[in-house]
Amino acid sequence: MARLVMKFGGTSVADIERIRHVANRVKREVDDGHQVAVVVSAMAGTTDNLVNLARQASAMHDAREYDVVVSAGEQISAGLLALALQNLDVPARSWLGWQIPVSTSAVHGSARILDIDGSLLEERLGEGQVAVIAGFQGLAPDNRIATLGRGGSDTSAVALAAAIGADRCDIFTDVEGVFTTDPRIVAQARKLDKITYEEMLEMASQGAKVLQTRSVELAMVHNVRVQVLSSFEDKPGTLVCDEGEIVEQEVVSGIAYSKDEAKITLTRVADRPGVAASIFGSLADANVNVDMIVQNISEDGAATDITFTVGRGDLERTAKILTDVRDGIAYAQLVTDSNVAKVSVIGVGMRSHAGVAQRMFSALAEKGINIQVISTSEIKVSVLIAAEYTELAVRALHTAYGLDAA
Amino acid sequence: MARLVMKFGGTSVADIERIRHVANRVKREVDDGHQVAVVVSAMAGTTDNLVNLARQASAMHDAREYDVVVSAGEQISAGLLALALQNLDVPARSWLGWQIPVSTSAVHGSARILDIDGSLLEERLGEGQVAVIAGFQGLAPDNRIATLGRGGSDTSAVALAAAIGADRCDIFTDVEGVFTTDPRIVAQARKLDKITYEEMLEMASQGAKVLQTRSVELAMVHNVRVQVLSSFEDKPGTLVCDEGEIVEQEVVSGIAYSKDEAKITLTRVADRPGVAASIFGSLADANVNVDMIVQNISEDGAATDITFTVGRGDLERTAKILTDVRDGIAYAQLVTDSNVAKVSVIGVGMRSHAGVAQRMFSALAEKGINIQVISTSEIKVSVLIAAEYTELAVRALHTAYGLDAA
Repeated sequence: MARLVMKFGGTSVADIERIRHVANRVKREVDDGHQVAVVVSAMAGTTDNLVNLARQASAMHDAREYDVVVSAGEQISAGLLALALQNLDVPARSWLGWQIPVSTSAVHGSARILDIDGSLLEERLGEGQVAVIAGFQGLAPDNRIATLGRGGSDTSAVALAAAIGADRCDIFTDVEGVFTTDPRIVAQARKLDKITYEEMLEMASQGAKVLQTRSVELAMVHNVRVQVLSSFEDKPGTLVCDEGEIVEQEVVSGIAYSKDEAKITLTRVADRPGVAASIFGSLADANVNVDMIVQNISEDGAATDITFTVGRGDLERTAKILTDVRDGIAYAQLVTDSNVAKVSVIGVGMRSHAGVAQRMFSALAEKGINIQVISTSEIKVSVLIAAEYTELAVRALHTAYGLDAA
Repeated sequence: MARLVMKFGGTSVADIERIRHVANRVKREVDDGHQVAVVVSAMAGTTDNLVNLARQASAMHDAREYDVVVSAGEQISAGLLALALQNLDVPARSWLGWQIPVSTSAVHGSARILDIDGSLLEERLGEGQVAVIAGFQGLAPDNRIATLGRGGSDTSAVALAAAIGADRCDIFTDVEGVFTTDPRIVAQARKLDKITYEEMLEMASQGAKVLQTRSVELAMVHNVRVQVLSSFEDKPGTLVCDEGEIVEQEVVSGIAYSKDEAKITLTRVADRPGVAASIFGSLADANVNVDMIVQNISEDGAATDITFTVGRGDLERTAKILTDVRDGIAYAQLVTDSNVAKVSVIGVGMRSHAGVAQRMFSALAEKGINIQVISTSEIKVSVLIAAEYTELAVRALHTAYGLDAA
């Protein structure tokens, strides 16, 4: 007997037929003797509709009312799945965030889960009742509904799994698992059987949109074993777990890419202490997330070029901020380029293997791809290249690290 | 400064444009210095959609889950109206049943309101904040959402008005008020300025579907002044109030009719004590509501005919029950007729005026309409006639009692 959390996204509960399919999937685990808590998203399309209505009612909306409107989506799907389970003679009841309760921070619209009281749920699970939990929602300190921000249902599921000490948290989605890279670009991409939390975090934040970053962080902190698998096909997915569970670790587990990047260069910045601090300080104050940073060596000892990347959506705002502080920093020119992409090689194995970055640079050089910026972490090497080379680079690296399927 | 409850039905909040219209209507009362609590139904169509989904998920649905699904409709419209009010710079917040709380009985799907804690609301109203309350829902003793049954938002509004001691409860709807009779049948029907609770109860239960019966009962018990008015046209409606508030009371206030009737006759029932009790006892046990009853005088002292009416929806069930208990009652024949209508003359003034029933019988006789069954109460005379004469009878009575508009 195991205790499982199963999470189904919006496309998995898009209509009554699919909800019935989900109910059957849940019933199988119950029939196998497991205790099951299910977390559901809103039916596909519902959240977008509700968000639209809220925006139409008030463009500058009060996040507390936004939460009231939008959280109705998960309330509906939770009730419907409980009904569909009962229809299969599986004892089930729905749980809303305020009923458990799932206590969150006060930041309506993008609240963080602070605590989940699992006692009521555990009691019912022990009695053989399936708990169907509305994802994406909790109860803020003001006794009002708070939502966790988009994709928050993954976080709900992982936090719940931690709270009730689940043996595994299965995230059912429209992909089969985590792949070595995007299968739409590389036909030889392979589904990974296992991946470490650290790698998954890099994969997620690098643009492999399988699991919400926060849910992976939470899983890592609470050591929740998370499986990503298809809700439409009946086969095992990818287990996101601790490094210790992975016996034979590849040096590189995957290649990620992101086209959501923009590059900014400030030319002839004064080469004296405190200049970098004042540039990036002003951006941090404005909540602009700076990713890669390169500072060239000053040729004449007086001025230097600084290049860095931000999310493409932040480019305009960043340029404005830097124009405003120009007097203090005294650069010659501000050059922006949003025609760039970031490609990353990820693997915990590179901690103990040399030459990983070198192999990346060679593989790209062989294809004539110019590297604009490089940044590295313990388990990742990222490069910024011209956007048009993205697919070529990803394919070349996938082959270079021996990831292609046989 | 007055304290008002304003209730808007589903067609009044059917889309964002109408919700904005409602917000403007509410703002006018706020600008006039009044404290306002608004009760909203779900956007027109939403409840039907949600009910359908719940039925599809499980035909024999668990009323607790049904309530979870269906109550989402009012949650959405309450949030949207709060947003629309804020957009007009009117301070507002939404309230869900469990937040106030509106405590209900345990009968999910058709719960009764037991208590409303008005303290939080009154505090906020005192601060000038408009309270937007999701109608139709409350919190059952099991800490789960309970709905009040269809049309329950009227009841929510009246109960709320009683709880916070409102000066008036305005029910905005798609009609201009309560009419002397159905204007679709009688072009000369007049809108009534005032009507007593007792008359309104008879009008409502007689088929004038303006206000839910339970909401009128509640208003009468707690002496809540209720105004029924149009949400689309800007003019006063009909005030439902205590008899004392109506200076010049007409003898007859209105003519109601119902085609939702069926007649049952049991012929040659044994004429001995206890027979009527066993007939109607068996129907009461099965929750069949019997309305009019006539027992003819026994000719031979041995057997008699008993005729009565039930709702048309109960006819089949009633016939089955009576067939099952035939041995005990020993009637000759069971004759049913669903081709009947009930026409009623209503007015508290008839308490102090003689000849009201006589005028009814004459008016119908003049038109050659045969009366099949008669029943009377203190403020009402009802007759059962062949359904095809309904409109003719209503028009004749409207004229006979001097109700036609000049």
